[in-house]
Amino acid sequence: MEKVAILGSTGSIGKNTLAVIEEHPDQFNVVALAAGKNVKEMIRQVKAFKPKLVSMATRKAADAVKQEVGETVEVLWGDEGLNAVAVCSDSTYLVSSLVGSKGLAPTLAAIRAGKKIGLANKETLVTAGHIVTAEARKHQVPLLPIDSEHSALFQCFNGERSAEAERLIITASGGAFRDWSREELIHATVEQALKHPNWSMGNKITIDSATMMNKGFEVIEAHWLFDFPYGKIDVILHPQSVIHSMVEFSDGAVMAQLGTPDMKIPIQYALAYPRRMPLRTKRLDLVSLSRLDFRALDFRRYPCLRMAYEAGKAGGTMPAVLNAANEVAVEMFLNRDCNFLDIEEIVERTLDAHQNVGNPSLEEIEEADRWARQFAKNCLVPVA
Amino acid sequence: MEKVAILGSTGSIGKNTLAVIEEHPDQFNVVALAAGKNVKEMIRQVKAFKPKLVSMATRKAADAVKQEVGETVEVLWGDEGLNAVAVCSDSTYLVSSLVGSKGLAPTLAAIRAGKKIGLANKETLVTAGHIVTAEARKHQVPLLPIDSEHSALFQCFNGERSAEAERLIITASGGAFRDWSREELIHATVEQALKHPNWSMGNKITIDSATMMNKGFEVIEAHWLFDFPYGKIDVILHPQSVIHSMVEFSDGAVMAQLGTPDMKIPIQYALAYPRRMPLRTKRLDLVSLSRLDFRALDFRRYPCLRMAYEAGKAGGTMPAVLNAANEVAVEMFLNRDCNFLDIEEIVERTLDAHQNVGNPSLEEIEEADRWARQFAKNCLVPVA
Repeated sequence: MEKVAILGSTGSIGKNTLAVIEEHPDQFNVVALAAGKNVKEMIRQVKAFKPKLVSMATRKAADAVKQEVGETVEVLWGDEGLNAVAVCSDSTYLVSSLVGSKGLAPTLAAIRAGKKIGLANKETLVTAGHIVTAEARKHQVPLLPIDSEHSALFQCFNGERSAEAERLIITASGGAFRDWSREELIHATVEQALKHPNWSMGNKITIDSATMMNKGFEVIEAHWLFDFPYGKIDVILHPQSVIHSMVEFSDGAVMAQLGTPDMKIPIQYALAYPRRMPLRTKRLDLVSLSRLDFRALDFRRYPCLRMAYEAGKAGGTMPAVLNAANEVAVEMFLNRDCNFLDIEEIVERTLDAHQNVGNPSLEEIEEADRWARQFAKNCLVPVA
Repeated sequence: MEKVAILGSTGSIGKNTLAVIEEHPDQFNVVALAAGKNVKEMIRQVKAFKPKLVSMATRKAADAVKQEVGETVEVLWGDEGLNAVAVCSDSTYLVSSLVGSKGLAPTLAAIRAGKKIGLANKETLVTAGHIVTAEARKHQVPLLPIDSEHSALFQCFNGERSAEAERLIITASGGAFRDWSREELIHATVEQALKHPNWSMGNKITIDSATMMNKGFEVIEAHWLFDFPYGKIDVILHPQSVIHSMVEFSDGAVMAQLGTPDMKIPIQYALAYPRRMPLRTKRLDLVSLSRLDFRALDFRRYPCLRMAYEAGKAGGTMPAVLNAANEVAVEMFLNRDCNFLDIEEIVERTLDAHQNVGNPSLEEIEEADRWARQFAKNCLVPVA
């Protein structure tokens, strides 16, 4: 029986995780949940899954939850609450699915507490991959990827020796603007950017898919998860998102994982690993799909992907700055404070202005993150 | 060090096996070779690989080999020679790549002698799957598939539990006549049938690809190799032959093995399993390929595939009769003694006339084989 804590339980990954757990009550139960401000959904989850501990982002949200279900569950809030959920003594497994760099600290705490980690929070590896992977090795904690692409790579490595792999091939749907020219992108609206062709996800990651920054983060994550050099990680455009990713081996054989776009598949795989369990999900039907397409990815068309490779290769605090500047830029875009193409401009200016710090500590990463957010916010303002 | 004997060393699989062995002299050496009548190639192979024992199909061919290299190698001939190569006391591994049902007896002998088996001879499992798999289990001998499709399935199962698999999906290129109508097939010539779109193979198997009987044999082989019911083995048309086959698991995930059409990949995998070794082969480039297509396979268009499923499900001596009738019919077609569509007609008439024998012994299988060959040869002759 895996006793599961979830960071980000009211988000897309969190809800799908609970749906998987609900299907297998004999295999999993829920012991702790953390969410942001979605009081209504958290109350529903507490009633349905009966965790021992929950936490909300704010005192106000925590009070609202407490008022409704406070007699059945301990309710905390803020960073302290988040951390308490992550290291909850009853849990054996943490699903880390917060969005953004606030996922890093509690995930690290859970690693140090010896919890298995189901990793959906990209920033954990993007900003502090060298620390997180070293701590996971030290505490002999498996990092089980929940992202569909990394889950695919992980499944392709199943039964294989990673020393016998030569290339990781990550597929990219191309996001909402796959067939738009650079010129057309100038006038892209928030509503247009939020229409992902294949996956239904949160707003931040959907915009990151449209800029291809999401794929850049995935490249950096793959570098850390599979200990692979950037020169051997390729990204190819595959509009149908049916092949979720591939591994090429030294004998020329390529293993691929395919499936319908249902996040429950990688979530359940991460929870049940090394077993597979039955899942009621739409089966892949290649005959109905009729064709799969592949195109090269052009760095000029997708400068965010280029910047991610560059930041990854540079290492140090650069990936943290990439991530922080992007978070600020995407939020500005979602708030209509900048245009779509300003996102890449903000990130590029921030990276250009950053003084890289090699092999940074967690404090240096946090400092770079703060600096980058400050810089990114103002870097488009014309100097008077 | 794997000490390898090869049945069918001058054929396409045999030559590719030797090419793989040549690349890894520290891993493999050649101890025994058996071939048909290709004296020149056998002499070349003896000089290059220095086996201790070789065998040819006829005394005449054996004498010709002996004359040239008789001082360095023992030369035998006929069924006895074939058997001696299969069970050669120096070998640890038999590559069984004869074409036709004559591969069965020596392969069974090698299994009983405890050799690992690299299996390219389809008839071994098609005609006597229940005996061969039972003997392999009894003698704890691995049956390592060399066919690209079964190697793909085998690779997809790597690290997985077969009880967690739900469906095998075997891909079919469609052969030389993929885009021909039934009406056009009436006038199909031998030369046209021998033009396989993707693979360069022997004549028999190339015709079997055009009729789709080859795919039918693969379904029966997959049934035995992976202990899977026929209702859970699908065949889909995939003209590019890039995805070599797939396994769908109970969670909806599909694992696939992809590659360029180079038989050295599955051969080396079977030889080196459970390791992978470097192989200098053209790498798969999905971007250059640009697309992969999939279509349903129509049993009416390909009656040989339907008959193979039916014979497989019926079991007993039916698959042996399917195979024997097909061998006769293909030979007749290659000799211009019948038309292309007569192949399926001969097979169907022979199957219809056969009295099935359940759970047959080897002798009963051989008897059914003899009967089927006799029947098939004459079943098109109009009764006067």
